[in-house]
Amino acid sequence: MPFLSGTLPARPGRPLFAIVLGNTLISTVPGVSGAGMSPEKTVLTPVLDSEFITHGAIRSRRMKPNTPTGCPTPAVITRAMMALLGMEPLFVNAGLTTSPVIPCLDVYGEPGRDPREGDAVPRARDLYARGERVGEIISRWSDFLVLGECVPGGTTTALCVLRGLGIPANVSSSFVNNPVVLKEAICAKVRERVRAEGATDPLDIIRIGGDPMMAVAAGICSSFRGMAVLAGGTQMLAVAAVLRDLGKNVPPVATTVYVRDDPSAGFASTAEMVGARVWYVDPGFGDLGHPGLARYCIGEVKEGIGAGGALFLARVMGKTEEEIREAVLSTVSSY
Amino acid sequence: MPFLSGTLPARPGRPLFAIVLGNTLISTVPGVSGAGMSPEKTVLTPVLDSEFITHGAIRSRRMKPNTPTGCPTPAVITRAMMALLGMEPLFVNAGLTTSPVIPCLDVYGEPGRDPREGDAVPRARDLYARGERVGEIISRWSDFLVLGECVPGGTTTALCVLRGLGIPANVSSSFVNNPVVLKEAICAKVRERVRAEGATDPLDIIRIGGDPMMAVAAGICSSFRGMAVLAGGTQMLAVAAVLRDLGKNVPPVATTVYVRDDPSAGFASTAEMVGARVWYVDPGFGDLGHPGLARYCIGEVKEGIGAGGALFLARVMGKTEEEIREAVLSTVSSY
Repeated sequence: MPFLSGTLPARPGRPLFAIVLGNTLISTVPGVSGAGMSPEKTVLTPVLDSEFITHGAIRSRRMKPNTPTGCPTPAVITRAMMALLGMEPLFVNAGLTTSPVIPCLDVYGEPGRDPREGDAVPRARDLYARGERVGEIISRWSDFLVLGECVPGGTTTALCVLRGLGIPANVSSSFVNNPVVLKEAICAKVRERVRAEGATDPLDIIRIGGDPMMAVAAGICSSFRGMAVLAGGTQMLAVAAVLRDLGKNVPPVATTVYVRDDPSAGFASTAEMVGARVWYVDPGFGDLGHPGLARYCIGEVKEGIGAGGALFLARVMGKTEEEIREAVLSTVSSY
Repeated sequence: MPFLSGTLPARPGRPLFAIVLGNTLISTVPGVSGAGMSPEKTVLTPVLDSEFITHGAIRSRRMKPNTPTGCPTPAVITRAMMALLGMEPLFVNAGLTTSPVIPCLDVYGEPGRDPREGDAVPRARDLYARGERVGEIISRWSDFLVLGECVPGGTTTALCVLRGLGIPANVSSSFVNNPVVLKEAICAKVRERVRAEGATDPLDIIRIGGDPMMAVAAGICSSFRGMAVLAGGTQMLAVAAVLRDLGKNVPPVATTVYVRDDPSAGFASTAEMVGARVWYVDPGFGDLGHPGLARYCIGEVKEGIGAGGALFLARVMGKTEEEIREAVLSTVSSY
């Protein structure tokens, strides 16, 4: 497998790497999300990861940039690529439970609620419109947008939205063992509410069972005037599906082979159903000599906070596979 | 008097117009601020003005874009210039009492407190550092920054900070009759606390008696790598003075002749003491044939939310005086 599937796009003049941060309270349900030391602490991950990517350390709390199982957070990969490219990401706050310590372009949303108990994103339509404003703003600064996300619990809301849109998808997980039964139970509740309402509009589907990131990311892509690439796994396929059903262009997606190879997710077939072209990045973490990174290959973490898209962007900007792998290894090894 | 005093800078390739929004609770003290229908409502002005500049209307509340006395808000001027230039401002949220409806680059500050009762901006140093992050972020997008502000009550905190830094300044006001006695009484309390602490560091002076805008705007200017111009009246001289006392470059200032001609403020002499070069813009509102604008000439409103800097930027970007005056008149007349 080559480092990058498919042909590289032309090197852009003004690339922008942006990451939409959001929360959904579904991540606090035990067993749903592996993105945090405990279910309650999963909601902190977007704030901690954005701090880590920007400063190279988490100063606001005493924490290591590792998952509960000792894998390096994908934020390390994103940081390594930003440093290699001399870039820094623009963070977009779609709705978080705690205040970031890094300046964010904020749309003043709220965290998504538990979709089993009522509308998950009551203001989905408004957040989409505010995402459109963000897309217009950043169109003035950039002609090539790589748009990542960080939403703990977001594969569960992605399942709810993909199924709500009638797509027979499965989704990936940051766990080695995808908690499929739990996700399906949550999704079943959401589908009941979708059916009861007779909802088909994708922004209604987000309102019923999605998360704020989806509305904002879809809005950004719909108004961005350059080329947009969604950076992430099944969560970004949900965003792509929303855009398709809104009658908008479906942006291509960049993600890691670790997401593609998740047998519980069926990423490639979902991408095909959604109509999204995909670049798969294979950074070869199995033979870098780092035990934590090697565990990405057996299905741990897999992707997150735009890591696959950051690796992709580094190649697009002319970095060699060797430079990219070396930058990841030396960054990870420094923690 | 020509439209613009002094020679124009070279036309920049990537101009950015940014506006730092902030609140200080001192604006809710009756008589301090004319920027709102009542003392309590003054705190809403930054949110309403940013909505008006972006959408050309205030949709979130039933309000007209006028001051209590029926003058057009300076936001109309800023909007007219942004439309003329095909630009839109980037709003920076330094600390507001209410959530904006327009996406803002947010540093996650809090509104300034009443400086008579204790520290006005307890996190001034942290906000300055976050402003520096903002300056670094926007340096990637722009080589020429015009930085305005909107802080109701901000001339009072400007007085506190300028005097706290040992500058025998007076400040302007959005009222025809500057409430000098009230401002001096507030300032006297702040000076007592400055003396009691023996504070001389400008970020300590902001902490004791300033507002969050000052810390953030100073941070932005200190790290911005292109040319920065402060857009505003005496409030921006306080920011310039803070930068001077931090040992940073003092940015030039662009404002209206209506601020310069305020006899209660002595703007030009304060600018000289601070070491700030000033461009004065004379948009000739007296002979445009609009009674509300004409009242700017008798000392009402005078300036605000970057209006003087927006007129300046339009000239820098090659618009003629006639185009600028026509754009202001047609925009004002449409409300």
